[in-house]
Amino acid sequence: MFESAEIGHCIDDETFDAEVPALRQALLEAQYELKQRQDFAVIVLINGIEGAGKGETVKLLNEWMDPRLIEVRTFDQQTDEELAHPPAWRYWRALPPKGRMGVFFGNWYSQMLQGRVHGRFKNAVLDQAISGAERLEQMLCDEGALLLKFWFHLSKRQMKQRLKTLRDDPLHSWRISPLDWQQSKTYDRFVRFGERVLRRTSRDYAPWHVIEGADANYRSLAVGRILLESLQAALARPPKDKRQANVAPLGRSLDRKTLLDALDLTRRLEKDDYQEQLVTEQARLAGLLRHKHMRRHALVAVFEGNDAAGKGGAIRRVAAALDPRQYRIVPIAAPTEEERAQPYLWRFWRHIPARGTFTVFDRSWYGRVLVERVEGFCTPADWMRAYGEINDFEEELSRAGVVVVKFWLAIDQQTQLERFEAREDIPFKRYKITEDDWRNRDKWDVYREAVGDMVDRTSTEIAPWTLVEANDKRWARVKVLRTINEALEAAFAKHGK
Amino acid sequence: MFESAEIGHCIDDETFDAEVPALRQALLEAQYELKQRQDFAVIVLINGIEGAGKGETVKLLNEWMDPRLIEVRTFDQQTDEELAHPPAWRYWRALPPKGRMGVFFGNWYSQMLQGRVHGRFKNAVLDQAISGAERLEQMLCDEGALLLKFWFHLSKRQMKQRLKTLRDDPLHSWRISPLDWQQSKTYDRFVRFGERVLRRTSRDYAPWHVIEGADANYRSLAVGRILLESLQAALARPPKDKRQANVAPLGRSLDRKTLLDALDLTRRLEKDDYQEQLVTEQARLAGLLRHKHMRRHALVAVFEGNDAAGKGGAIRRVAAALDPRQYRIVPIAAPTEEERAQPYLWRFWRHIPARGTFTVFDRSWYGRVLVERVEGFCTPADWMRAYGEINDFEEELSRAGVVVVKFWLAIDQQTQLERFEAREDIPFKRYKITEDDWRNRDKWDVYREAVGDMVDRTSTEIAPWTLVEANDKRWARVKVLRTINEALEAAFAKHGK
Repeated sequence: MFESAEIGHCIDDETFDAEVPALRQALLEAQYELKQRQDFAVIVLINGIEGAGKGETVKLLNEWMDPRLIEVRTFDQQTDEELAHPPAWRYWRALPPKGRMGVFFGNWYSQMLQGRVHGRFKNAVLDQAISGAERLEQMLCDEGALLLKFWFHLSKRQMKQRLKTLRDDPLHSWRISPLDWQQSKTYDRFVRFGERVLRRTSRDYAPWHVIEGADANYRSLAVGRILLESLQAALARPPKDKRQANVAPLGRSLDRKTLLDALDLTRRLEKDDYQEQLVTEQARLAGLLRHKHMRRHALVAVFEGNDAAGKGGAIRRVAAALDPRQYRIVPIAAPTEEERAQPYLWRFWRHIPARGTFTVFDRSWYGRVLVERVEGFCTPADWMRAYGEINDFEEELSRAGVVVVKFWLAIDQQTQLERFEAREDIPFKRYKITEDDWRNRDKWDVYREAVGDMVDRTSTEIAPWTLVEANDKRWARVKVLRTINEALEAAFAKHGK
Repeated sequence: MFESAEIGHCIDDETFDAEVPALRQALLEAQYELKQRQDFAVIVLINGIEGAGKGETVKLLNEWMDPRLIEVRTFDQQTDEELAHPPAWRYWRALPPKGRMGVFFGNWYSQMLQGRVHGRFKNAVLDQAISGAERLEQMLCDEGALLLKFWFHLSKRQMKQRLKTLRDDPLHSWRISPLDWQQSKTYDRFVRFGERVLRRTSRDYAPWHVIEGADANYRSLAVGRILLESLQAALARPPKDKRQANVAPLGRSLDRKTLLDALDLTRRLEKDDYQEQLVTEQARLAGLLRHKHMRRHALVAVFEGNDAAGKGGAIRRVAAALDPRQYRIVPIAAPTEEERAQPYLWRFWRHIPARGTFTVFDRSWYGRVLVERVEGFCTPADWMRAYGEINDFEEELSRAGVVVVKFWLAIDQQTQLERFEAREDIPFKRYKITEDDWRNRDKWDVYREAVGDMVDRTSTEIAPWTLVEANDKRWARVKVLRTINEALEAAFAKHGK
């Protein structure tokens, strides 16, 4: 895989100087067209051997192109804040928006390779990381991103020679980092595992480009050209050209029965019982969030439900138990301009709580398989693949110790009607009812089917759905609080001690 | 994920009897249209809890539909022959051709689940198997297959009850297999790992369908309906509607230098040296193939090269060393009708040697990234994803002990011209030269680029390319033999003792 990057590619200065002006011009033009159209983001991953000119090449690209539209990120040691979040969080927060280009050094590949080369884990774990990278990249490309992966290569001989040259040159010896020396010892392992990673992750939508790094002219021109060709090809696609998935129908429940039918909506709590249980559960939650095991966990509670099912009231009862510094409530409405310029899950990743804290999502990433599906705001391919993407997302959270609790607050049509009418009668509640609510009500059955599919496909051991009988608000509120408490206790019992 | 398959779905007999005739009719029609058009194959995977009606449902489908167009396969204990091949071989040989439907019991999911449930490996290895299944399925779907995955479910209570009923019924107690009893003990683990597998492998192009198995009417109708809808949706797609990949340009070597330029084509062997070395290497190969370690390995040698580079002659020198019962030579020409009805790699999988044996491929699966790419016989998306598919394929071979040796026999344009002209002059060689050869010669540079990309993207540690300087036939023949011998010796040394 690396052989042809060891044959001494080079470009003489004359050729280089003759080629660069046109290349620069074309790159700039592509960059501005990208900015103008804002159809997709460009993500460039820089990996490979130390000393093969990774930094110099990116520096040069920044000179050639408009650096205001390029964000270069290095993922080195994790910051405290990054350590408090799931591992993928640092990459999500750094994603360039549509119309711009992000260059990632020390990205996910660097992490997995370092870990494997230094024996921190075996091939099976490396393969898990590879598979995670594939899922992330496939999702990014499905969301329209142009992903370029460069591996800068040097043969062992070339690498050693370069280190020697630098060492002997007093002006440049400072450029040799301890990492360089270390790598000269681990070169063989690095290349061997590097090949495993490249082999597995070179896919049609995001192939690896191996660049021989010895000659500066060659590597600069090679990277510039590939970048240009890829940009031009991506710009030439019609704006809405998404990958046409072979979307398979999900099939419907034949007897039209879903889990929602299994709910006993007559469940209720009398006022006295409610008061007592509410206070008990609130105190329990307050205690749990102050518990020392909470330092290893974070808590995410997702609230979805029929209109007027009482999400707001339930959320307030949860919040009432807590110090406002402990939690954040994130209401999810239509995405902002900034959010629309990012992959779908980005606007949720940004609100994922740090360890020790708690975030309530008032509506959530499930919008894609509910309202966006029903209203046709996204294509069937988009919402179909969302089930898998959401499961991957929640698995990442869960693996990092985030406890994910998901509620669907269910009421029947009659109860909804009564609440809608009541809202129209009570002046201070009138803002809560809109034309949209009445329209959604007409789509009761379609939503019901979407909810059924959602629960079937995303209620998992690591992040189960809890269906809440919400005709009686008291019952619903207590059930919500109790479910959160039980989930936290289970997590503490598992990871605690 | 399984909750809504535990709520007691059922369909009464009256409804069932009323629905079935129309469903049968529609299924038959879809089946015949599929047969007529031969656009794609249908692969149905049957998994889930023992006793949930898997067998009965498939039996019923066979009654409803035309069983001549359905092949039902069970992958139980591996046969001797299967054990002698890489694990995936048994699935490849069972793939239904386009226009037909294959139903797979005991498929790859059964294997990985049993292994994990019985503690033969941990989650990391399960995840590797999951990732392998994903790659296989994505490839099948990219090749146009319609893949349906059914998970038949029973709650623990339902399963126990069913076992009890059967046991107490003397007429049916024979139907309880030891596996059933075993599963009643491992139910929880089976469901837990089942969920992990379903979560990870439910993708837009091939989602899982979880079917509650307790009520026969319900499960039969549910499976029939999903099958029908999926068939109809797939038939409604325009015939050539392949997944539109975001194909990224590969980029070209700037200085136009490839590994081929690094070859010293003046290399040659004098006649005496040749005779001596040839005999030595042939004897060495004969010995290696009789070596006891060969029982754990198989050998695959791939010959590609310029027209008139001497592939045939080299292959004959390899064969000359051997007992004809030890090897097979597979010449690859245009695919047969049967082969065109299968995924691209199928026609190579069928010739993969069993352990202890040796297959020579005279041209190979690399046709896709060479002639098919250059001549436009497949789309760019097809040949772009082929690099990854081929690497996966060779990795599967290698993991199963198959030693893969790949040769590119390289000559220069002048040598080719001389050989072409010589062939036209020698009567018995005239059949070896065609119009096509002259046409290909005009595309020398395009082929050269394709060869460069091929070597860059598929020369891997597990299956490296050997570029053979073939202007001198003697040199080439000895190098080929020696390379095979060295590869075998390295494999024996690694796995041997």
